[in-house]
Amino acid sequence: MNKITTASIAALLLTAATVWAQKPLTLENTVPGGTEFYEHYNYPVRGQFVSNSDVFVVVEPDGYHVGDNLFSRNQIDKALVDNGKQSMSYILGWQNAETTWIYSDKASAAYGINLKNSTITDSITQIDNEGDIDLAPDFRHAAVSVNPDLFVAGNTGNHKVNEQAGDGIVFGQSVHRNEFGIEKGTFWSESGKRLAFYRMDESMVGEYPVVDITAREAALAPIRYPMAGETSHEVKVGIYNVENHDTLYLKTASPVNRYFTNIAWSPDDQFLFVAEINREQNHMWLNQYNAADGSLVNTLFEETSPEWVEPCFAPLFVSNSQFVWISERDGFKHLYLFNIKTLKTKQLTRGNWCVTELYGCNRESGEVFFQANAEGYLTRDIYKVNLKGKMTRLSSGYGVHSAWFSPKYGRFVDNFSAPNYAILSTLCDTRTGAVIDTLKSVRNTYEGYTLPIIKTVSLKSADGRFDLCGRLILPSDFDSTKTYPVIDYMYGGPHSQLVDASWLYGASTWKMYFAQQGYIVFTMDNRGTESRGVEYEHCIHRRLGTCEMEDQMVGINYLRSLPYVDTTRIGIHGWSYGGFMTISMMTNHNTVFKAGVAGGPVCDWRLYEIMYGERYMDMPQENPDGYARNCVADSIGNLRGRLLVIHGDIDPVVVWQNSLRLLQNAVEADVLVDYAVYPQHEHNVIGHDRVHLFKRILQYFDDFLKN
Amino acid sequence: MNKITTASIAALLLTAATVWAQKPLTLENTVPGGTEFYEHYNYPVRGQFVSNSDVFVVVEPDGYHVGDNLFSRNQIDKALVDNGKQSMSYILGWQNAETTWIYSDKASAAYGINLKNSTITDSITQIDNEGDIDLAPDFRHAAVSVNPDLFVAGNTGNHKVNEQAGDGIVFGQSVHRNEFGIEKGTFWSESGKRLAFYRMDESMVGEYPVVDITAREAALAPIRYPMAGETSHEVKVGIYNVENHDTLYLKTASPVNRYFTNIAWSPDDQFLFVAEINREQNHMWLNQYNAADGSLVNTLFEETSPEWVEPCFAPLFVSNSQFVWISERDGFKHLYLFNIKTLKTKQLTRGNWCVTELYGCNRESGEVFFQANAEGYLTRDIYKVNLKGKMTRLSSGYGVHSAWFSPKYGRFVDNFSAPNYAILSTLCDTRTGAVIDTLKSVRNTYEGYTLPIIKTVSLKSADGRFDLCGRLILPSDFDSTKTYPVIDYMYGGPHSQLVDASWLYGASTWKMYFAQQGYIVFTMDNRGTESRGVEYEHCIHRRLGTCEMEDQMVGINYLRSLPYVDTTRIGIHGWSYGGFMTISMMTNHNTVFKAGVAGGPVCDWRLYEIMYGERYMDMPQENPDGYARNCVADSIGNLRGRLLVIHGDIDPVVVWQNSLRLLQNAVEADVLVDYAVYPQHEHNVIGHDRVHLFKRILQYFDDFLKN
Repeated sequence: MNKITTASIAALLLTAATVWAQKPLTLENTVPGGTEFYEHYNYPVRGQFVSNSDVFVVVEPDGYHVGDNLFSRNQIDKALVDNGKQSMSYILGWQNAETTWIYSDKASAAYGINLKNSTITDSITQIDNEGDIDLAPDFRHAAVSVNPDLFVAGNTGNHKVNEQAGDGIVFGQSVHRNEFGIEKGTFWSESGKRLAFYRMDESMVGEYPVVDITAREAALAPIRYPMAGETSHEVKVGIYNVENHDTLYLKTASPVNRYFTNIAWSPDDQFLFVAEINREQNHMWLNQYNAADGSLVNTLFEETSPEWVEPCFAPLFVSNSQFVWISERDGFKHLYLFNIKTLKTKQLTRGNWCVTELYGCNRESGEVFFQANAEGYLTRDIYKVNLKGKMTRLSSGYGVHSAWFSPKYGRFVDNFSAPNYAILSTLCDTRTGAVIDTLKSVRNTYEGYTLPIIKTVSLKSADGRFDLCGRLILPSDFDSTKTYPVIDYMYGGPHSQLVDASWLYGASTWKMYFAQQGYIVFTMDNRGTESRGVEYEHCIHRRLGTCEMEDQMVGINYLRSLPYVDTTRIGIHGWSYGGFMTISMMTNHNTVFKAGVAGGPVCDWRLYEIMYGERYMDMPQENPDGYARNCVADSIGNLRGRLLVIHGDIDPVVVWQNSLRLLQNAVEADVLVDYAVYPQHEHNVIGHDRVHLFKRILQYFDDFLKN
Repeated sequence: MNKITTASIAALLLTAATVWAQKPLTLENTVPGGTEFYEHYNYPVRGQFVSNSDVFVVVEPDGYHVGDNLFSRNQIDKALVDNGKQSMSYILGWQNAETTWIYSDKASAAYGINLKNSTITDSITQIDNEGDIDLAPDFRHAAVSVNPDLFVAGNTGNHKVNEQAGDGIVFGQSVHRNEFGIEKGTFWSESGKRLAFYRMDESMVGEYPVVDITAREAALAPIRYPMAGETSHEVKVGIYNVENHDTLYLKTASPVNRYFTNIAWSPDDQFLFVAEINREQNHMWLNQYNAADGSLVNTLFEETSPEWVEPCFAPLFVSNSQFVWISERDGFKHLYLFNIKTLKTKQLTRGNWCVTELYGCNRESGEVFFQANAEGYLTRDIYKVNLKGKMTRLSSGYGVHSAWFSPKYGRFVDNFSAPNYAILSTLCDTRTGAVIDTLKSVRNTYEGYTLPIIKTVSLKSADGRFDLCGRLILPSDFDSTKTYPVIDYMYGGPHSQLVDASWLYGASTWKMYFAQQGYIVFTMDNRGTESRGVEYEHCIHRRLGTCEMEDQMVGINYLRSLPYVDTTRIGIHGWSYGGFMTISMMTNHNTVFKAGVAGGPVCDWRLYEIMYGERYMDMPQENPDGYARNCVADSIGNLRGRLLVIHGDIDPVVVWQNSLRLLQNAVEADVLVDYAVYPQHEHNVIGHDRVHLFKRILQYFDDFLKN
């Protein structure tokens, strides 16, 4: 592995057209799922840190590099087979530099293996391979959720955690549709002796009739889908005691219309902390519970907002009595230190920028590690801050850095991507950020290919208050004396950023392919997207689509000002929220767009789910005008350009009813809408079928935009 | 009403282009459901015969013309209101020339009204308005099927006929998916004292998950849909005795895999006759049952076929011991006289033509009235035959005649349509066919409009054995020195005939509109379609689509031989079986067609229902190769032209799974298929939405065929 300084990257220029290049881009090498795509994808180094250490295990084709040792997959399998076990399916984790834990599908078991002497050190048996496995920090147990039940497995077998399940009640699974930063349903205490878990009762939630057409006769495969304004599911938080097998539930307020998020253990296992949010999502209570009996100890603090509160990061404990909390209370996401005993709060970071990730803390040094966009909203860098508020930037080089920190916080892997540098993974020192080793470096994932020209432009948001960054992709043989058709690709929804300072300014590579087919491809993030502060992000409240469109029209007007843009051939494309935006733009500005493609579009926010939908729109009962004004299913009669709507027939996120309603209304309104269905695809068309999808999208623009 | 002789019609020439014409055709006046369509539709006179008479009641806007009397709707309503009843919803029938029976939705009752003296003569009460009403011949009772139950209503109220229903069991409804000529589920004996009815158990039939997207959250609305080769429903035939309220069931063989069709009563109420057919549909038993106890009296005769038997007309009794039966036993559908006592059969009609309708018989004169195509396969005429086999043609004028006969068989209404005459309804004498009165006459439903040019051409079937008739529609400004794109519209399935000697040679008027947009529109019936004899019709057995395509390619080759046809711009369109044919043609002859539109297509005969599907294809288990070869969902990878597939999302005939499977396979095969869904439409897009449908179809051909 060569060592590359980040300084040298900045010297590179992104003038791909001048590069000696012969090979043309194809859909197969620019669309995820294409047979050649992954050869060109800028994924970071593969690997993970060893538990309780600063050792990073690099995974290479020849095996697992642990310090100077290399352990091959064959060697691990041989150790298993020699001990009479089944071969491995995948690595669960590294207990120490010699001992790895593997999972074996065939045996439904996990084994700890000392690779130095090829012995099995311990095992966890009867893990159902259908479930999600969450290994305890002490490697002695695993939480396994096997729908609808939850088990804790150890070396003597399984113990079922929950009482009766079924009839719409599930245990140990992610809840609240993965909103509020929730990604899983089990939470080990640091000692590994207690397990917090979710219990979700969906029995009162409406079932959406998804249909499986691959059955001999099409069969029903319904999903519980709680639509905005309708009855929501009910969640409880349980605690399982590994030593005595007891289970108790937190004595919270009624779970009706209440969200339980950001679960964290105190380091000493004594307390469980839960951020509880009302259904209106404008009030949060950070509650401390006694883990021994589930009783409420204290509401530590509350947060409210006229629009919404949305905590996404669990309390990060720097000691038994202090934790770091991310709050937007000053208008930007910043770190606060909270003391459980004194109930005092201290702001650790401040400025017109946002903390974007919270990585962890070194309790000995009192340092907290995080990611933020303090160097500019297109960038992400790695920082640390001590408990006095002294902040240090650990990463260098203009671009997007993300990190994995070692359990001992002595090292981190910096995965860096810049507009002109695809991926650079380095092992760094947490004291200074100094590079210790280069783990992976690929300057150009398309070396030898003809690439289009990528430029950015700074524009002002429609209200004049924010800088927006537009990204233009021009064909490699661009001739400024000619005019070109434009495809404006957008997403526009919360928690998104399409243009940043990563490789090719974040351009997904199919857009480069489209550019090479003679289109200018434009993208710009609007107000309402992520990590720009409350005023920028919250202006969408109760009127999704409105200020997003105002900003997107700034981009359109910029495009129309360019002499090489053919203003009669402006196209638009987006998926999901971007599909909603595409139809909104085409129906609200119906003389602007000649053709558009909207995939998986929300066509009526009343058909979207409660957690995401009501955060932004309130309930339909509370905001009928807002729902009506932003319902593209109802405004489709305004359509004048050619519109292709695409939907997966088993989409569990934006249910099919959305686009079918739109089609029904289009017939009623005497408007022709083109349509495509991707059978047996969910919210996104994935796998190799995605190549077909983009072939279709390109064909549509070729048919109705190009000429 | 003017009297017009049929002789004068033949003198008219169909040279619409020479007619002084100004108004252009539009979708609204050429598509059924369009706001102006019905002004131009060639429907016959409205009316019905009075019971036990030769009096025909003509319905005009001013009311009901009964002989010299006119009864207005207001007059009927006044008679009701004056007698303290609710106003009428519709006429159920005429008991005599003074007494009509009406149904009142609001009162859920039927009333007999003497219109001469405005008195209520009788009533039948508590008829549920959700059900189908079948009035007994004596006007004393009505059979009312209210899913899932069956009631017999009289003037003292309702009696429920069936025992326990529900759980998939229904009574009094049409069964076997309306195949075998079945149109209803209740059958009154001539005296009105006994009622035969169907009991259908569908509990063992697979449910197809149809989805209602108009619900707040999409809701399931499943249908029992028995797919080819799967478990079929089970039917029993019951008899209800009106006088003692007893119900019994016929003691048939096991109803598993057996069809019960063509139910008829002997004139004396003593026997019930049922044509029973095995699941393979190659063996029929005509059984006589004792109506008093349901026992089998005799199997009168059997019919078998190497392909299929398909009786569609119930025995027609000319006396208590003799009935007329339609059989294909000599290769064509002909009338046979069968004697129950002697078990002897006598053939009444013969020739290389088919009986197409059986109207009834005059038991006094021993004359049987029917429709046949004896004058040529494009025609239909009205005939009678006596029991000695002497046949007399009652209708005159080249074209298509259909008839309604009076209960006393002294009169009939001849509804006549010719290529150059839209509709002529005359009241005729059954003795000679002489015209007594002209009831309606419209020579040209598009008087004053510019019409395209319609021509026919005679071609030989691919096997050289049959004449086929192609119909060409040319734009009114047709110029033989230019070249035109062609749309070949086809259906091609059994029981169909698209080209005949009716108005405009049977051309549906939207085709004329398409021609006026610059297309030549061609249509031709192929082998396998109706009323041409067993050899012509049965060649499709176990290989649906194969010889149909061979014939359709004869039509294509004819088109390609025409100097004014642009052979690079041949399009194709069809719906249902025609949708199947469209995709079959485009995938089997994939260099021929530039663009096609397939609506509601059967894409895999395994997904079609048992009764129709297995008759032609046998079970998938018995004919795997036949199913595989004719599965367009599987051959879609051969597609080269542009194909638009259209489907209604609640289609209960060709279930949605068909086209969704095809789309899924198209993705797999890397072929692009265009798609349209008509939400909440069943097998055909009906109502005003049909105008939108044809707007779409035309747009598609304009996009991808015209230039």
